[in-house]
Amino acid sequence: MDIDRFLLDLVVVLFAAKAGGELAHRLNQPAVLGELLGGIIVGSSVLGVLADHIHFLHLLTISSGSGAYPVLFICAQIGMILLLFETGLETDMDELFKLGASALWVACLGVALSFAGGYFVMRLMHVASAGALFVGAAVSATSVGITARSFSDLNKSRSKEAKIVLGAAVADDIIGLIILAVMSGLAVNRISLVGACKTALAAILFLAAAVVLGRYFAPKIMDLAHRMRTKAALATASLIFCFILAIVANYAAGLSPIIGAFAAGLVLAKTSHKLHFVKQLQPVASVFVPVFFVLTGALMPISAINPGSATGRTVILQTLLLFGVAAVAKIIAGVSVPERKTNRIAVGIGMIPRGEVVLIFAGYGIQSGALTQGLYTAVLLVVMLTTFVTPPLLKAALGKSDNEKGGLQKSEAVSQPVPAV
Amino acid sequence: MDIDRFLLDLVVVLFAAKAGGELAHRLNQPAVLGELLGGIIVGSSVLGVLADHIHFLHLLTISSGSGAYPVLFICAQIGMILLLFETGLETDMDELFKLGASALWVACLGVALSFAGGYFVMRLMHVASAGALFVGAAVSATSVGITARSFSDLNKSRSKEAKIVLGAAVADDIIGLIILAVMSGLAVNRISLVGACKTALAAILFLAAAVVLGRYFAPKIMDLAHRMRTKAALATASLIFCFILAIVANYAAGLSPIIGAFAAGLVLAKTSHKLHFVKQLQPVASVFVPVFFVLTGALMPISAINPGSATGRTVILQTLLLFGVAAVAKIIAGVSVPERKTNRIAVGIGMIPRGEVVLIFAGYGIQSGALTQGLYTAVLLVVMLTTFVTPPLLKAALGKSDNEKGGLQKSEAVSQPVPAV
Repeated sequence: MDIDRFLLDLVVVLFAAKAGGELAHRLNQPAVLGELLGGIIVGSSVLGVLADHIHFLHLLTISSGSGAYPVLFICAQIGMILLLFETGLETDMDELFKLGASALWVACLGVALSFAGGYFVMRLMHVASAGALFVGAAVSATSVGITARSFSDLNKSRSKEAKIVLGAAVADDIIGLIILAVMSGLAVNRISLVGACKTALAAILFLAAAVVLGRYFAPKIMDLAHRMRTKAALATASLIFCFILAIVANYAAGLSPIIGAFAAGLVLAKTSHKLHFVKQLQPVASVFVPVFFVLTGALMPISAINPGSATGRTVILQTLLLFGVAAVAKIIAGVSVPERKTNRIAVGIGMIPRGEVVLIFAGYGIQSGALTQGLYTAVLLVVMLTTFVTPPLLKAALGKSDNEKGGLQKSEAVSQPVPAV
Repeated sequence: MDIDRFLLDLVVVLFAAKAGGELAHRLNQPAVLGELLGGIIVGSSVLGVLADHIHFLHLLTISSGSGAYPVLFICAQIGMILLLFETGLETDMDELFKLGASALWVACLGVALSFAGGYFVMRLMHVASAGALFVGAAVSATSVGITARSFSDLNKSRSKEAKIVLGAAVADDIIGLIILAVMSGLAVNRISLVGACKTALAAILFLAAAVVLGRYFAPKIMDLAHRMRTKAALATASLIFCFILAIVANYAAGLSPIIGAFAAGLVLAKTSHKLHFVKQLQPVASVFVPVFFVLTGALMPISAINPGSATGRTVILQTLLLFGVAAVAKIIAGVSVPERKTNRIAVGIGMIPRGEVVLIFAGYGIQSGALTQGLYTAVLLVVMLTTFVTPPLLKAALGKSDNEKGGLQKSEAVSQPVPAV
């Protein structure tokens, strides 16, 4: 029976997620790094056969069923939808406006420098234009989850630096989603300026309509669900709302379903029942979300970074160059922040982590044929490197700041709720 | 993209579950009744095409993928696994022994009378022996979830009657699972006395080994998971434990995966971390469990109970006779209880509800070819009738008891945690 096979795969994936997550936690690294590493180990051993047989297409499209595996990939996609839904729920649009110019400056400059830097480095290495565009887009956006987690680990969640970085990361996410909309349009239509403008317009119109209409209707729907007496009505209503916006985003606006899920989260963050369904959804998300990251790791073609082969050496070189560009671009953006009395280096370092968005771009790039397996691997390795170096670098930068300024932020070591990743 | 189609189906199923559940709740009926009714409405309209195209086999086997629907059925199966896992977690073996002879008497007599009554009524109506056996087995076991919920709705959870009924329902569940093991063996091997004995022995051996070995290893595994620092480690470890026992039950003992899940629940109920992962798993279960009941309702061939056709009239007659046997058998078992100062009628009525186990038997019966679509429908209708009549009958019987005995149980109206269904 297929249910057995599915359960067995699920057991392997969940075990890899928690073992990897635990190892990462013990090494003071974000759990997502461990999940990716767990996936790589599982992918090259237990699920090795799986990696050979499943086309990369499956990771983000799953066009036809073939046994139990597609179910696992649908679980992974639901994981991504729940992750972006949660990210939306934790994103305060008003807070972003309050943080004002500094956060937006860091976000825009950081994205622009990373995108341009990634693109030009790839072009210098004779990568085709479409591939270079995907790589640039992939490394442009800072990951909200990893950034928030890093500051929380250092008990600096309420410092000025953390607020600027979190605000900028939120802006990065929105910019990243618009870039994603443009790029996924490109993936289907090939490169077309009119098509890109239409996709960008559709993305902005969908987000605006979802936010404006959603802010009007969502409280009514949630109040209705809140008055229902049957079990888990509010959590189910929020899931239904999320799924409907995911479907509408895809059918009506041609966007990725996760953009709809993010919009649903943004809108529901404004309702009074937010805390209730965040609490109900987190256990569901904590099962599904790691499935995505473990599968992502499992699908990484580890043989592509063999230093003994010419292509392997190319991938390693691409990885190191991209990582350099990704780190330097964000540090420049941080150092140039106009805000006074700020540890600008710490802001820049705080912007280094890349995460979910990179993996989504990598999936789209592979799907459209713009990214080779080598580039896909290089981009995934950049995620791991940025995630890996940030916590120790941030600790060093903020510790130095404490000494110089006489421990200004020491009393601010208040812990904040940590996102799911 | 298939993810859209899957999300759309999931939205329809979740909406049907919550709308049906809410309606049932407003009419003072268990939510599971509303979910089944929601499924019938959805099945005969929105998902009508689905019901025509999907063979009944899919409900419990899913041997090959064909688009997005099998994913929904895998979700339903995971729902059943989580439900039986939760049932196991809420089942206290020690409590059953304390309640002693009365509960066991009610359980054994009720199961024996229902099984024999169901079998003979079917044989009288010229149903083949294999089909009559499945019907008898299907209507034999009282549903723990519905019974507990009914007493809780009436604020009688801590009355003596409730304890006897709950104890007997727990015994029913275990007897039902052993009968299920025998019957599912029959479904595969055809009728063979040696095979049946082997299956029964395998079931008992598996349960004994799972309980004995599990009670030794489970606390160690859970303590290890408890010491882990990564998110949701304990809940994930309990899920992995549940899935592994489900797989082992199927591969090693030839049992249904849900028997393994039930055994996993029984074992983990003994660990000190039980409350923590029950709390973490309930939101996951509250999404998956209703999927099973809505799909069950959606797959009911509603045209089979058309009173205008001869076969339709047969189904209606079979339903009414079976319902009569199912109710009378349990009332006789209740009335004959040896316990003193007990409202024996209330005990009998409390044993009437049939639930999950019936649906599982119905699935196996259809799968093995022993049950026709007509008998499948009749058995499902018996679930609905027993679920529907119990709350008002129980209210009447216990109200009468209060008047006669001067309101002995009035101060005992303490609410208890309600199972997931």
